[in-house]
Amino acid sequence: MADIENNNDLTKDQNEEKEDIVTPWDVEGANDSGIDYEKLIKRFGSSRIDDALIERLEKVIKKPVHHFIKRGIFFSHRDLHTLLNLYEQGKPFYLYTGRGPSSESMHLGHLIPFIITKWLQEAFNVPLVIQMSDDEKVIWKDLPVEEGIRLSIENARDIIAMGFDIEKTFIFSNLCYMGQCPEYYKNIVKIEKCVTYNQVKGIFGFIEDDVLGKVGFPAVEAAPALSTSFPFIFGDKKRQVLIPCAIDQDPYFRMLRDVAPRLGFAKPALLHSTFFPALQGAKSKMSASNFNSAIFLTDTQEEIAMKINDHTFTAEGNVDIDVPYKLLTFFLSDDNELERVKNAFSSGQMSSAEIRKIAIDCLQPIVREHQEKRKLVTDEVVEQYMTVRKLNC
Amino acid sequence: MADIENNNDLTKDQNEEKEDIVTPWDVEGANDSGIDYEKLIKRFGSSRIDDALIERLEKVIKKPVHHFIKRGIFFSHRDLHTLLNLYEQGKPFYLYTGRGPSSESMHLGHLIPFIITKWLQEAFNVPLVIQMSDDEKVIWKDLPVEEGIRLSIENARDIIAMGFDIEKTFIFSNLCYMGQCPEYYKNIVKIEKCVTYNQVKGIFGFIEDDVLGKVGFPAVEAAPALSTSFPFIFGDKKRQVLIPCAIDQDPYFRMLRDVAPRLGFAKPALLHSTFFPALQGAKSKMSASNFNSAIFLTDTQEEIAMKINDHTFTAEGNVDIDVPYKLLTFFLSDDNELERVKNAFSSGQMSSAEIRKIAIDCLQPIVREHQEKRKLVTDEVVEQYMTVRKLNC
Repeated sequence: MADIENNNDLTKDQNEEKEDIVTPWDVEGANDSGIDYEKLIKRFGSSRIDDALIERLEKVIKKPVHHFIKRGIFFSHRDLHTLLNLYEQGKPFYLYTGRGPSSESMHLGHLIPFIITKWLQEAFNVPLVIQMSDDEKVIWKDLPVEEGIRLSIENARDIIAMGFDIEKTFIFSNLCYMGQCPEYYKNIVKIEKCVTYNQVKGIFGFIEDDVLGKVGFPAVEAAPALSTSFPFIFGDKKRQVLIPCAIDQDPYFRMLRDVAPRLGFAKPALLHSTFFPALQGAKSKMSASNFNSAIFLTDTQEEIAMKINDHTFTAEGNVDIDVPYKLLTFFLSDDNELERVKNAFSSGQMSSAEIRKIAIDCLQPIVREHQEKRKLVTDEVVEQYMTVRKLNC
Repeated sequence: MADIENNNDLTKDQNEEKEDIVTPWDVEGANDSGIDYEKLIKRFGSSRIDDALIERLEKVIKKPVHHFIKRGIFFSHRDLHTLLNLYEQGKPFYLYTGRGPSSESMHLGHLIPFIITKWLQEAFNVPLVIQMSDDEKVIWKDLPVEEGIRLSIENARDIIAMGFDIEKTFIFSNLCYMGQCPEYYKNIVKIEKCVTYNQVKGIFGFIEDDVLGKVGFPAVEAAPALSTSFPFIFGDKKRQVLIPCAIDQDPYFRMLRDVAPRLGFAKPALLHSTFFPALQGAKSKMSASNFNSAIFLTDTQEEIAMKINDHTFTAEGNVDIDVPYKLLTFFLSDDNELERVKNAFSSGQMSSAEIRKIAIDCLQPIVREHQEKRKLVTDEVVEQYMTVRKLNC
């Protein structure tokens, strides 16, 4: 899947004066307050995750939802009620998410879909497939094919370090898996048969000078949402899928939702997250090429402190735009503690310096522990996760 | 590769008033005399196979060229001199041709590229790869994927019956092979990185309402012309390729010739044939859906006689357009006998009825023998040809 850092042509609704831009390659707020997610829900035609849905989720899984959901970081969905209906009827689903391996260093923002995916996998005890879209990166970033595969493996190491159950998780590089399982290509052909150039142009804003690889990629990102792309896991069973992702990836699956019924599949269900803020604030974008715009999983403890102290956008007392506070909403899981910080900071009892320190204390151990776990992920372990095999669920 | 029987939008040179239409999906002469091949050579920028080239070929292989070449049925080429230079330096090439399996019954015209390919393989003792583009047919003909694969296997049976050396020949279905060898998809991605939508639109005449599968297919037909698509045959060696095909397939390789040097490959060499005439004459097209427009490899001896007697376009004494005579130029290999027939027919000494009988006597045993050989091609034999393996050359 794509980072949100590339430039490309944009799909805008021409009816509105000035609108947030949200495509797989570009995310830009129309004004300083960042993306208007309410408007986005309307424009994309998805549904808000409301209290009733949260309540239902908790009833089904018999435990509280993840704080990403409670706090509105995952704020939008498609067909989650249908998915839960099926689940309650004993019809299990599977999870699909992905990563576009454009560089060796993943940053904290890249973890968001994987954190919720891991939580969902544990809550529902379902199989998970993770696409490393190295073909996409080879095409968009003009990387050599072998470098794309190398980055897939390096990024897979980070993903594995997050603790996904090896018995229930299959990670695949497109450049490798395409040549390992004919059913994958067959499903791509089936999707490619149903979508016109005009449609992808409308959905993704492609221009005529875009290369064929770009024009064709939507079918490649969509295909793993058809369970028959993994016959060694699902046989020829058509199983419902749930795709947790940042909302900029929605266009791929909006496209597939049109096509799936024609192929005899249910429409994929989705869970959409907001965007992770750049350290410089919600308006600017996090970029792997700008060292100080993000906290990388490879950062030292000192670099984390330095970045938060010197490079975060702070707004004394304003929890809506203060970046150190925003980071806490993602990574401080203790609701009571977050509430205490919020109240103290809003009321002026807590200074920017203090909240920065809290953010540093929160993030340093997360990154340190990640680095420790990553060291344990040997080449052999990566190979096991990426081996075509039966899963145990 | 494509049959020439489909409709699609066309690439025309806008500078000329009325021009022959030659695309992979449509072949139509601007006037009654059929395609003007001299004009086509100029428009496509290929080279005529002239006496000097024929002489050189015969010197290199130390035997006469096939009558398809001598008689101008294969009339055009690209880079054959370069290929022969390399061959003389001890640098071997490989052969690539293909078939778009749109129906179970192949007709005589479908054999033309395979006949010359077999002759070239024997003359030069080189490996051969044959693409069954079932993915193309699934997309263009709206066939189910499994039906595409079935037709690939049935058509492969006909191709195998022609006697290709199993030690030197690999036949592959795109829908299957894509999932068997990652290097194939990698090469497709490399090509897709170098060609824009605008370019394929210009070359193939795609329109915006064409599905993604059509837009992306040119890279799939082009990729086997990169030797690294077959690592089990060529390792990672970049070997020159020679592609014998009907000239309507040239656009795919014109596209690749632009791209190949950027990928570190030599431009593919080509050998182009004229089109096989429909029984109703050069102006109309042969069609698998019109039983009487072609002689099928499944036709009985009686059907062959009936079709030639009742459904061929005849032109008393005119060897330029008389279809029974045209058929003899393809299938009567004895030059002296053909010369005798030509003189007798032209001078009015031989009637249409007589030349039809000669054509029947020529074609009946060819089809009968093909049917006998085809019966010997068991499922196991087909599987052997289509198995990913090292070749012995």
